[in-house]
Amino acid sequence: MKINRRNFLKKASLGAAGSPFLLNSHGNVEEKETGITYSQLDEILSRPVLKKELFSTPVMIEQVSLLRYGDSILCKVVSRDGAEGICVSNDLYMTSLYPIFVKRVQPFFIGKDAVQLEEIMRDVYLHNYKLQGLALWLPVATVELAMLGKIADKSMGELIGDIHQPSIPLYLANNNRGRSAEESIARIQEHVGEWPFKALKFKVAGRMHEGEFPTGRSERLIPLVRETFGDEMTLYTDANGGYSGVEAIEIGKLMEEYNYGYFEEPVPFDWYEETKQVADTLEIPVAGGEQEPSLHNFRWLIKNNALQVVQPDQFYFGGMIPSVKVARMADAAGIQCTPHMSGPGLGYLYMMHFVSILPNAALFHEFKGFNQRFEMECPTSSLTIDENGAIKVPTGPGLGVIIDPDFIEMHEIVKA
Amino acid sequence: MKINRRNFLKKASLGAAGSPFLLNSHGNVEEKETGITYSQLDEILSRPVLKKELFSTPVMIEQVSLLRYGDSILCKVVSRDGAEGICVSNDLYMTSLYPIFVKRVQPFFIGKDAVQLEEIMRDVYLHNYKLQGLALWLPVATVELAMLGKIADKSMGELIGDIHQPSIPLYLANNNRGRSAEESIARIQEHVGEWPFKALKFKVAGRMHEGEFPTGRSERLIPLVRETFGDEMTLYTDANGGYSGVEAIEIGKLMEEYNYGYFEEPVPFDWYEETKQVADTLEIPVAGGEQEPSLHNFRWLIKNNALQVVQPDQFYFGGMIPSVKVARMADAAGIQCTPHMSGPGLGYLYMMHFVSILPNAALFHEFKGFNQRFEMECPTSSLTIDENGAIKVPTGPGLGVIIDPDFIEMHEIVKA
Repeated sequence: MKINRRNFLKKASLGAAGSPFLLNSHGNVEEKETGITYSQLDEILSRPVLKKELFSTPVMIEQVSLLRYGDSILCKVVSRDGAEGICVSNDLYMTSLYPIFVKRVQPFFIGKDAVQLEEIMRDVYLHNYKLQGLALWLPVATVELAMLGKIADKSMGELIGDIHQPSIPLYLANNNRGRSAEESIARIQEHVGEWPFKALKFKVAGRMHEGEFPTGRSERLIPLVRETFGDEMTLYTDANGGYSGVEAIEIGKLMEEYNYGYFEEPVPFDWYEETKQVADTLEIPVAGGEQEPSLHNFRWLIKNNALQVVQPDQFYFGGMIPSVKVARMADAAGIQCTPHMSGPGLGYLYMMHFVSILPNAALFHEFKGFNQRFEMECPTSSLTIDENGAIKVPTGPGLGVIIDPDFIEMHEIVKA
Repeated sequence: MKINRRNFLKKASLGAAGSPFLLNSHGNVEEKETGITYSQLDEILSRPVLKKELFSTPVMIEQVSLLRYGDSILCKVVSRDGAEGICVSNDLYMTSLYPIFVKRVQPFFIGKDAVQLEEIMRDVYLHNYKLQGLALWLPVATVELAMLGKIADKSMGELIGDIHQPSIPLYLANNNRGRSAEESIARIQEHVGEWPFKALKFKVAGRMHEGEFPTGRSERLIPLVRETFGDEMTLYTDANGGYSGVEAIEIGKLMEEYNYGYFEEPVPFDWYEETKQVADTLEIPVAGGEQEPSLHNFRWLIKNNALQVVQPDQFYFGGMIPSVKVARMADAAGIQCTPHMSGPGLGYLYMMHFVSILPNAALFHEFKGFNQRFEMECPTSSLTIDENGAIKVPTGPGLGVIIDPDFIEMHEIVKA
């Protein structure tokens, strides 16, 4: 699908009568809109995501446990009928967030009907809204992803949508920073290795205005990556909020010159009006949303075309269901969706099931490596990257993999 | 000081050329601005808060401990010279957030110079920005408030500002909901009791769109509270984000009719453009900011006069230093500041020290009751409410109170 950000242009002067939501340092810009209205988006938000019609009877949740072995954290959900769902959580954060799970999220699910998942999640939010952010959403995602596990005889994607992509084209996300452009190229090449990727993302700027080191690295790297990997490679950059609006516009023009695919988080994630101004000024699509904690702000970002590619993270944003709501709004506005992928371990599998149901999927999706931490079987996919740089989505129930039971067994119940 | 929201009016049509940041359901409104520019606000944000000139030598931090006894959580900071600072944290949340403190905040402070507090806090943020929100800020506040404790021979207020209010006029915050207007009046009267308060805040709407129970309670309560407490009582309401923009405007007009002082959180805290539209449409000042996690969004809310009273919470927003930055921006824009008070235990004392330094303090400040949980001495204030409904700010070092050492002793070090 094509991004239609050019379809609805209008002129707005930034003088005395200008929008209060635009940078005052940047002269006149064209304000670009999507043409979608808030009423249309609200109607989309009101539609359920979980397909309740797949369940003829309630699925009563008897047990929700958070389990830990070293830094590995799992959530296990067991229904009264003995169906089990497992989520391999995002350890990097869950080792700091487990009491939020145990004290503030878990109690809402025990003894409830899993078919009412969306209603339960709404209730969790109402009782915890002051904690809105990754710290609340990641524990919520952990139980949601477990509930969408093998609790029904459907794949995770089929529980929440229709399959549009049985196979997911990947881009390799490289995290290299702090070295010269030339050294960075060597490391990116090494990372790509023999994999047949057709797309690649690398880091520019210094994270969150930390300042770039070495100075001028990004300006040199942008042409150099294009020259190194050729015109056929789709290239993305990620600034992690490293630029001001004015700086982002300048470097974004260099990306346009070298035909880059999108520019992720040009300014800090909570700089809403600057994000929109960068997007309004540049031709290259602006991507973002990894750290957006609010569905209402996603609604604003989409309605106002402040992002042309939205990137909800299934862990950071509270699971599949809220991510699908973002993707649906984006689809209606002609905006693409691709997840930010977090969660070492099985993060790539959650990403794949989410992308599988997107009608407005971006061309390529984030890949940071395979699970190396435990054994698992997958009867329906080899879980390897094919010659097109894509990977087949498992079709079995839930996540579609069987995790080594001995590995699960080593975990103990977490208390807080 | 007077709120100058009427000084800078302009007309903006909400048709095709309107601001992307306004509700589309509400016809034409006057967009009210403060006249302050982003450059002026950025200059204010760049000024340090902690008065480094009070320290002739570094104050090296030897120990930072999180301590717990039951649900009581304290932070103790000890310098190499043996100076000790204690923070009585917000137990309600810290019992869920302690691993964030122990694993992600505490390590940044040990072995550092307390005089570089702001630089350390910036570093904590850079390494944890994905957790932005109460879940990060409350642990940061806990160590910041301990560091501003008896680590120097100055009161907490004197370390970060000039004393403008030696005594703090209070309003009683009543949390009653879910009962008829008549029953609510009886409970509010009981709560006020014999205290000589000159101001009162009560709850309207259902929290965060939960729906109001019983229906119509707020419409009846608003006139009834005015009739019951008379024209001399300053009255505030708090909707906790319970209304849509259109509903908030309607009920706000009723508050105007009965001469209410301000209307807190008319719409959910993350509904930025609706907050501005409610403020633009109503005459009654709109208050908010309790749950705002982003300094950059406070900058937007202030510049654009979306709030006429800003209410940073010293715990929820990461301590005194970020709260002072919000208050300074507000002051420059002619906007009042009053803290949201959280933290049962000593929350009211942190509130008082913060208010003591505000040149743009609101008329009255939030009070929810005295500490009943442990013994303490205060040599410089009786910590009682005087005949004007005000309370004297302690002037001793740090918080100005001496907490019962036996109580502190009962606490044990928290690990995560």
